[in-house]
Amino acid sequence: MEKTCGNGSLRAGDAGRKVTLIGWVSKRRNLGSLVFIDLRDRSGIVQITFDEKMAAQVQEVRNEYILSVTGTVQLRKDANPKMATGEVEIHAEEVTIVNSSEALPIDLSDNSTSSEDTRLKYRYLDLRRPSLQANLILRHKVCMIVRSTLDQKGFIEVETPILAKSTPEGARDYLVPSRIYNGKFWALPQSPQIYKQLLMIGGMEKYFQIARCFRDEDLRADRQPEFTQIDIEMSFGDEDTIFAVVENLMHNIFKGVKNHELEDHFIRIPWIECMKRFGSDKPDMRFGNEIQDITSIFENTEFQVFRSVMEAHGMIGAVKFSNAADKYSRKGLDALQEFVKHGFKAKALAYLKMNGGELSGSIAKPLSDEEKKAVAERLDLQDNDLVLVIADQERIVETSLGALRVRLAHELDLIPQGENYKFLWVTEFPMFEYSEEEHRWVAAHHPFTAPKEEDVDKLLSDPAHVSSRAYDLVCNGYELLSGSIRIHDQQLQKKVFEAIGLSPEKAQERFGFFLDAFKYGTPPHGGVGIGLERLTMILAGTDNIRDVVAFPTTNSSFDLMSEAPGNVDQEQLDVLGIETVKKETEE
Amino acid sequence: MEKTCGNGSLRAGDAGRKVTLIGWVSKRRNLGSLVFIDLRDRSGIVQITFDEKMAAQVQEVRNEYILSVTGTVQLRKDANPKMATGEVEIHAEEVTIVNSSEALPIDLSDNSTSSEDTRLKYRYLDLRRPSLQANLILRHKVCMIVRSTLDQKGFIEVETPILAKSTPEGARDYLVPSRIYNGKFWALPQSPQIYKQLLMIGGMEKYFQIARCFRDEDLRADRQPEFTQIDIEMSFGDEDTIFAVVENLMHNIFKGVKNHELEDHFIRIPWIECMKRFGSDKPDMRFGNEIQDITSIFENTEFQVFRSVMEAHGMIGAVKFSNAADKYSRKGLDALQEFVKHGFKAKALAYLKMNGGELSGSIAKPLSDEEKKAVAERLDLQDNDLVLVIADQERIVETSLGALRVRLAHELDLIPQGENYKFLWVTEFPMFEYSEEEHRWVAAHHPFTAPKEEDVDKLLSDPAHVSSRAYDLVCNGYELLSGSIRIHDQQLQKKVFEAIGLSPEKAQERFGFFLDAFKYGTPPHGGVGIGLERLTMILAGTDNIRDVVAFPTTNSSFDLMSEAPGNVDQEQLDVLGIETVKKETEE
Repeated sequence: MEKTCGNGSLRAGDAGRKVTLIGWVSKRRNLGSLVFIDLRDRSGIVQITFDEKMAAQVQEVRNEYILSVTGTVQLRKDANPKMATGEVEIHAEEVTIVNSSEALPIDLSDNSTSSEDTRLKYRYLDLRRPSLQANLILRHKVCMIVRSTLDQKGFIEVETPILAKSTPEGARDYLVPSRIYNGKFWALPQSPQIYKQLLMIGGMEKYFQIARCFRDEDLRADRQPEFTQIDIEMSFGDEDTIFAVVENLMHNIFKGVKNHELEDHFIRIPWIECMKRFGSDKPDMRFGNEIQDITSIFENTEFQVFRSVMEAHGMIGAVKFSNAADKYSRKGLDALQEFVKHGFKAKALAYLKMNGGELSGSIAKPLSDEEKKAVAERLDLQDNDLVLVIADQERIVETSLGALRVRLAHELDLIPQGENYKFLWVTEFPMFEYSEEEHRWVAAHHPFTAPKEEDVDKLLSDPAHVSSRAYDLVCNGYELLSGSIRIHDQQLQKKVFEAIGLSPEKAQERFGFFLDAFKYGTPPHGGVGIGLERLTMILAGTDNIRDVVAFPTTNSSFDLMSEAPGNVDQEQLDVLGIETVKKETEE
Repeated sequence: MEKTCGNGSLRAGDAGRKVTLIGWVSKRRNLGSLVFIDLRDRSGIVQITFDEKMAAQVQEVRNEYILSVTGTVQLRKDANPKMATGEVEIHAEEVTIVNSSEALPIDLSDNSTSSEDTRLKYRYLDLRRPSLQANLILRHKVCMIVRSTLDQKGFIEVETPILAKSTPEGARDYLVPSRIYNGKFWALPQSPQIYKQLLMIGGMEKYFQIARCFRDEDLRADRQPEFTQIDIEMSFGDEDTIFAVVENLMHNIFKGVKNHELEDHFIRIPWIECMKRFGSDKPDMRFGNEIQDITSIFENTEFQVFRSVMEAHGMIGAVKFSNAADKYSRKGLDALQEFVKHGFKAKALAYLKMNGGELSGSIAKPLSDEEKKAVAERLDLQDNDLVLVIADQERIVETSLGALRVRLAHELDLIPQGENYKFLWVTEFPMFEYSEEEHRWVAAHHPFTAPKEEDVDKLLSDPAHVSSRAYDLVCNGYELLSGSIRIHDQQLQKKVFEAIGLSPEKAQERFGFFLDAFKYGTPPHGGVGIGLERLTMILAGTDNIRDVVAFPTTNSSFDLMSEAPGNVDQEQLDVLGIETVKKETEE
């Protein structure tokens, strides 16, 4: 049983060819004594025609039966322009029913009526959907391009362990009880971070791995308990070297799978500037509407609200939306106010509208004519422009206006559709962030990230103002990768652990072997981890991570298909030396 | 800091070139006022010469310091033919000490004096050993060739879950307790078997994955708790189709990494024949010395020992070793006897030696002249030939003589050294084997393997004599892969579960979703899983699996480097709803 070609590959030029096709019945129609069957395989769908004589042999055939058909390719009288193979049909001369099928429990049509849960339960059937197959093939292509690109640049793919040591910094580890050493546990790695740095210490120089990573988080819509990272690390390079490798990779990927040429180099914006201009560390650059700092206009303001913000060293910021004033009624603006109050802790949202040369709006009255004129000039306001204004602490102003910027861009349809990819390096991320929960500074990226050299002295004295050599690559508002130049000096590494309150004893217990390794000729090194699912989602044009994962879980981390996690035999727990604990209902 | 080329790449033709090199100090010698340093990077080692003026700058430099050196390539007066770069040296003009190193705790030289345990503890340093780096690069190359070969043939790499469902058939699963569903567990997959079959049901047609697999076994020398499998599955093919894919893959791998041409097609031998001829299901075909069944010679024997074996329907088998009679004294033969008695349950080992046309040896006396003559003729005995004879149950005769065949081939140096790869397909493995421990028939391969069509009727009535469509690929006595044509019929699958004593309820609980999937148009399919470590070991010419794994564990499944598995915080166990159990000492 061998097919001579893919069902989806046949074209008018194949007319007259004798072919053997194998595939699944996707549709069946009877027309008088004739039977038409759409036969589907991975390559696509083609119509098979069974004449009166042959029709008897497919009498019992229903959807999702598997047929092997030998016949001749013929031109169709009425071509179907909606099908890639729409110019031809196969006149069946021989047919074998390879396997039968019960009626499917899910609807495979493009506008499926089945719920996502039902489709996940029958994932093995949902995978027959051509769009899902196309996504998996796309993912495969991306990986092929990644590997050939990096291989050509001298990177070696090295597999690092999945059964690893638990180092509970960052997200929660999945644990694996040891049967041989009862009471001890492996952990599934959140990333190959420590291993790839050890490979640099081991002299591998250029490493990569398309690596499975695990985080036991309360899932969000775009997360899965396991995910895949294109993990890259190299010695003797700096940001320039690493960015060049990644840019080349992205060029090849977008060229290879979308035939789309990306710009040669992606712009770089330091984190502080990025927050000021876009109120986000992953700004969507497909549209403008940057945040304007208009604080200086109000240095001598009599408007009490602004004055008190300025006295508290706050900021007054604005975002302009051209020709949008008439699109936001009082009610629409109230909704925006609720949005920033509840989502971003802003105390209030003010607005101004330009109309016939006059500014109206919530703060038109309290502002002086001079101030209004200055605003209009600074923002270059034209008729029907809308200005959203927030006066508050700097970070609140930035994040609130940044969120409004994105929300209105969607509402006002400011984002160019189609193949439009705007990349941006965000650099010099803060080294630490304060954890209110743990009452300590924690590593913003991870504790192996190098601080900027000029900030090393502030590590312990002023951690809030230490910038790091961490960077993200952002595309269309999504974080595609993050990475950093790493610490390669043992003393500096110890100081960073101290800054995040990890005692020398704890640090030694958790990372002892890793700290030891730094003694023996550690090269300067750095790298990145690229989210493969995120990258594939952008390329596939989907917002649902389950569209690019073959066997995904639900958002609550359950595999509806195999019903995992599941029960295990008591004997399995006994040999592991663990037992399950009945929990009191705590909530 | 950018190197202009790899240290190991420099040749006489580069003389006069100005280069910047970066690497680790592998050796340092002072010769009067001159200093010579061997500088190592991933590409190799080259000698750097520091004249009197420069020498001062490397005064403090010791082994494993990292240097960046700019200088000019010069021809050496005395070329060193042992080094690839032995014709040249670099005259240093600028040098930077990039990082320092304490004295290493392990010996990196080729004949290391460090124990394997010490080297595993400092794996990140041991990885600087050029031979180990070469193995990892070899492994990478193999994977690159596998992917490009399969991609070109239309196979799609699909990642299947690592957090999977526990299906305790075969080896033990590693379990992962669920935090969200306390009391329930994920399992790490022993292979992607079920997922790849579901991908076939999902219409993927041609799948592969270089997949991590996990088995919680009591380890043997050549096993690790996690290992990697080149996993392939395809629909609508049979043994011929699948073997052709694998043969093409092996051709490309051996050509690509060894520049070695393998034979076009590998021979195929059914399992029963293989056992008869070689006493093993993974025979080393680099030498002959096949087992001869000489039972028929003794049909009317008066030799009581042989007669009673024949009455019990046993077998008398022999293996000839040419020109070896004088190499085995009585003492040497006694050792062989002990070997088969203790290792293979043989009751005794007999032998004959040909000397000046006369047979001597342990059974020369009880055999008649006629019988001896028949043996000499059947085995074509020449002067100084040694014949080992065992009379016992058929399986014991085969496995004992098979083991002797291999042992003597090593002792007599019968195995051609060098690039000599003898491949063999062993086909039609038994479907079941009887587990004395569990008092039931178990699947010899796995329970999704198709029985040979003509044996289906015997599944329940005569499981001992059901052959399967399982196959192995053997190279030089090692099992490189195993695979099978799978069952694609739900009723047949149920019958096989019945044969191995898996009740419909248990089968439904464990594989319910998988059994259900068979209802909906399952294509005929089959595949293989190739052991990547084993393949790389053969190519690298090593017997130690740790030579081809970046971060291996000990034989007792402990990572000496990170000391994993390790302790975890009580809080980590609490959220998982498990606790560890103090075990009574049971043994």
